[in-house]
Amino acid sequence: MPRILRINTRTKDFKFEELGDYAGLGGRALTSRLINNEVPGDCHPLSASNKLVWAAGVLANSGAANSGRISCGAKSPLTKGIKESNSGGQFAQVLPRLDILAVVFEDKPEADSGFSIVEIYSDKVVFKDASSIVGKDNYEAHEELKKVYGDKAVTALAGPAGEQCLAASTIQFSDPHKNPARSAGRGGMGAVMGSKKVKAVVLDPEASGRGKPADPEKFKAARKRWTDILMGHPVTSEGLPAYGTAILVNIINEAGALPTKNFRYGRFDKVSEISGEKIAEVIESRKGKTKEGCHTGCVIQCSQRYNDKNGDYLTSGFEYETVWGFGANCLISEIDDIATMDRICDEKGIDTIEMGCTMAVAMDGGVLPWGDGKAGIELLKKVGSNDPMGRIIGNGTDFAGQAFGVDRLPTVKGQGLPAYDPRSVKGVGVTYATTPMGGDHTAGYAVATNILKVGGDVDPLSKEGQVELSKNLQIATAAIDALGLCLFVAFAVLDTEDAVQCICDLVSANHGIEFTAEDFIALGVNTLKDELEFNAKAGFNKSDDQLPRFFSEEKLEPHDTIWDYSVEDLQAAKV
Amino acid sequence: MPRILRINTRTKDFKFEELGDYAGLGGRALTSRLINNEVPGDCHPLSASNKLVWAAGVLANSGAANSGRISCGAKSPLTKGIKESNSGGQFAQVLPRLDILAVVFEDKPEADSGFSIVEIYSDKVVFKDASSIVGKDNYEAHEELKKVYGDKAVTALAGPAGEQCLAASTIQFSDPHKNPARSAGRGGMGAVMGSKKVKAVVLDPEASGRGKPADPEKFKAARKRWTDILMGHPVTSEGLPAYGTAILVNIINEAGALPTKNFRYGRFDKVSEISGEKIAEVIESRKGKTKEGCHTGCVIQCSQRYNDKNGDYLTSGFEYETVWGFGANCLISEIDDIATMDRICDEKGIDTIEMGCTMAVAMDGGVLPWGDGKAGIELLKKVGSNDPMGRIIGNGTDFAGQAFGVDRLPTVKGQGLPAYDPRSVKGVGVTYATTPMGGDHTAGYAVATNILKVGGDVDPLSKEGQVELSKNLQIATAAIDALGLCLFVAFAVLDTEDAVQCICDLVSANHGIEFTAEDFIALGVNTLKDELEFNAKAGFNKSDDQLPRFFSEEKLEPHDTIWDYSVEDLQAAKV
Repeated sequence: MPRILRINTRTKDFKFEELGDYAGLGGRALTSRLINNEVPGDCHPLSASNKLVWAAGVLANSGAANSGRISCGAKSPLTKGIKESNSGGQFAQVLPRLDILAVVFEDKPEADSGFSIVEIYSDKVVFKDASSIVGKDNYEAHEELKKVYGDKAVTALAGPAGEQCLAASTIQFSDPHKNPARSAGRGGMGAVMGSKKVKAVVLDPEASGRGKPADPEKFKAARKRWTDILMGHPVTSEGLPAYGTAILVNIINEAGALPTKNFRYGRFDKVSEISGEKIAEVIESRKGKTKEGCHTGCVIQCSQRYNDKNGDYLTSGFEYETVWGFGANCLISEIDDIATMDRICDEKGIDTIEMGCTMAVAMDGGVLPWGDGKAGIELLKKVGSNDPMGRIIGNGTDFAGQAFGVDRLPTVKGQGLPAYDPRSVKGVGVTYATTPMGGDHTAGYAVATNILKVGGDVDPLSKEGQVELSKNLQIATAAIDALGLCLFVAFAVLDTEDAVQCICDLVSANHGIEFTAEDFIALGVNTLKDELEFNAKAGFNKSDDQLPRFFSEEKLEPHDTIWDYSVEDLQAAKV
Repeated sequence: MPRILRINTRTKDFKFEELGDYAGLGGRALTSRLINNEVPGDCHPLSASNKLVWAAGVLANSGAANSGRISCGAKSPLTKGIKESNSGGQFAQVLPRLDILAVVFEDKPEADSGFSIVEIYSDKVVFKDASSIVGKDNYEAHEELKKVYGDKAVTALAGPAGEQCLAASTIQFSDPHKNPARSAGRGGMGAVMGSKKVKAVVLDPEASGRGKPADPEKFKAARKRWTDILMGHPVTSEGLPAYGTAILVNIINEAGALPTKNFRYGRFDKVSEISGEKIAEVIESRKGKTKEGCHTGCVIQCSQRYNDKNGDYLTSGFEYETVWGFGANCLISEIDDIATMDRICDEKGIDTIEMGCTMAVAMDGGVLPWGDGKAGIELLKKVGSNDPMGRIIGNGTDFAGQAFGVDRLPTVKGQGLPAYDPRSVKGVGVTYATTPMGGDHTAGYAVATNILKVGGDVDPLSKEGQVELSKNLQIATAAIDALGLCLFVAFAVLDTEDAVQCICDLVSANHGIEFTAEDFIALGVNTLKDELEFNAKAGFNKSDDQLPRFFSEEKLEPHDTIWDYSVEDLQAAKV
């Protein structure tokens, strides 16, 4: 039976608990319910009252394709609301092998306490002194841990940014390729980890075995159908594997929705230098890999191995949003500079989307020149160092805006907006404005239906239908996140009639329960309700459900569209 | 007839307008009504949509004692709500001599525009290039202006902090002693001035003459009675003139309410080294002055001239809150260090209360050692410089807390709390929590009734009666601020039966209207209603009306009291 492991970071006590009231939940449904139940809405995110929850999904370690995502939840230091930050990597595959569904880090040590490495076993938790890796970048720290725990060590790391409790810091999870390259990126989960003085978590290197489904035959059939569904859709079987998520660079630029120069234009004149096609060409010429999974069991393989000019590994998980953030949004067109920035973000433990927005704001503030990749690299290297500039940059877009006196800040609920201009993809704008997560595309990816024409066709430039679209996607996404599935399965699910039923069959067969399409929807709705309830306790109200005014004041080329929703219009997107 | 002068800082156009709908208002009533009417609640405080309003009071230039305060209003870069920041100095005395009651700075220049010196005359506004004083500290800049506009130049300055749009920056107004030593300190009004690229404002050096009351005889009689009232109360005739506001150091320490070491204790063991009595002794030994007015017509004379060890002028307007902020709150006991920090704050244009809280948070974050005055001086000198540390410090308490990962932040609505621990002076705690201004003592100074036993006697440690007390004081204060009166008149007003009637007589006789005690209350109530309405549009809700959780979690020595009000308890303090 999977359990919840609670770890008191002050007393170093731990206990394994039955799921109890949390039975039936997993992933984001579990992190959000627990945060809503147990964390005071008005607490400071870095205080002892906050909790950091990591939860594997309902389908974790079942062997179903793409079911290995991990949800990290807490009150966010960035948004000051509830957060679920979702990552790939091996952690959620291996954690259930210890009969643990979720880990909850509670309380916090005294201010002068040192950092710990926390070892998790099926029957105990051991705190080790982390002095040997404190202050180290993530790759070096992970190498040190591999020396102790073996080459396949499954780790989670707070980088130098997380140690300093910077609001844009990530938690980095190790991937199947032995690198700490997968990020729970958004919302500063690394800062919460840092506030609790946890530098690293390592899972028992001896953990092994796959979960046994309650109904093996039914599960096997559902699992096969599930893989067929994913492999039967062009986005998940062709587009993403070929070019990774960066396939979107050209598509979104063509749609006039690639935010350029801090969201001033919808197209970037040097787009061909940063496109997915260009990246694939560079990767191949340097004998990297264009296809790689972020966790065992992934059949989509949208990650890659990007080598530098010498053919040495530079980065992976080099996403569209990162390419956009440092590229078009900062007018940087040298792809190696952008890849280097991606690596630095993984090294320091800092969110690439937030950094893309932050750097553009710093450029607006005159801190560095537009388009200067080398200056951008130097700026990012300061994050996690003793240079106070690093503390400014590492706290994200709004923070840098205040530091540099910039008033044009593309954020919602304190979180920097991702790579789709909401004036040209209005459906995703509705998601940015209304998701409890703050400015976030993954919470209801209406780009799919607006631009890629997956799951229907809703005109991206028109107001019509977007609120309903966003709401439905927000519900489905919350359910997918609860199950531990990769969000990219949604492309296939939206276009395949029996996909939701297939997911339900997987859950039913795995757990020996009756899980229906209604249960799937309820899982999503209830998760959102928990999140909205927490945010209300944290002081949010509907005036927080809106984009910054400049989107309504400045027309976006090439379509000359503005953001034209009132707060009242948007309320219907919330459950 | 007094007029409103509107200055467009982008086009450099100006117009003089009749008061129109704003007739009958002045000071804070005018700034808050205008901001509520004309500034969108959801705009960024540094954007073109924000307005900066300076208004003299209803009794400005009438010759009534202590009627020369100026109100500065805007959407605050610090609190993100409405702000009235109140200052002494000569500005509000002289502005009405140009037949101008208020100045409104609108719009903002392009990002690459230079700063201007704005000259105001009775019939025109002239923009001059400010290059010669840009980047200069306030005393030097004011000296430069005196060379051009004469020794008695009446100026308002954005210091280096305001130029950088830092959220804790002040506007410095020149005093009768030819120094830019009076601050509109709270809420970052200097940043709004800086965002509009106004470095300095200078009033026509030829402006002269006092306003003529509509009923000279009645006014003369009321004016005499008004002076007698102020001179008849021990606080305004003895305590404040003898020791300045620093008379409170010993009193509040004795009451166990002097926040010490970032609000950890209620008493400071080295209090005798920073007391008002000690300061008076130092001033006298160095041939400074213990009594000075901040504006012409002040009969209370709570300011001073504090000389350094060589007998040279160091600072004035050296307030209790400043002595507390850098003193007890940072454990600094060297009074010359504290006086030097006061001067640096006036030089850089930065709020001493916010800096006292910020520095203690920086000490909690390990940035500098507790009690180290010399390190504090060096830290403050960075504000307004190119050092990014200066941008962190200059943005105030919450900002520094986020930069340094400190979760124990004594702020309400983003503004650092002043020098009275709310656990031991619960009445002022109610004001901190509920005033639309954010953490502020002047908005409803219940310390008077809780500790000084002025206007009654309400036990400072008991919950009873505090909400009603704070509400009544908030209303009276808003009215006093609207009239342009110094808040310190309230001590005498609260204890003198005919004082409100005397104020009403002053207004009636000056303007030839019938102004009653009901009108006085209505002026206060309507001002607060404007402010609450604006804050609601800016997204505030009742969850913002509360102190940080640590006040409810940590008992305060020596009385072992906690903050024990629910948000619901507190709502009745709002009009």
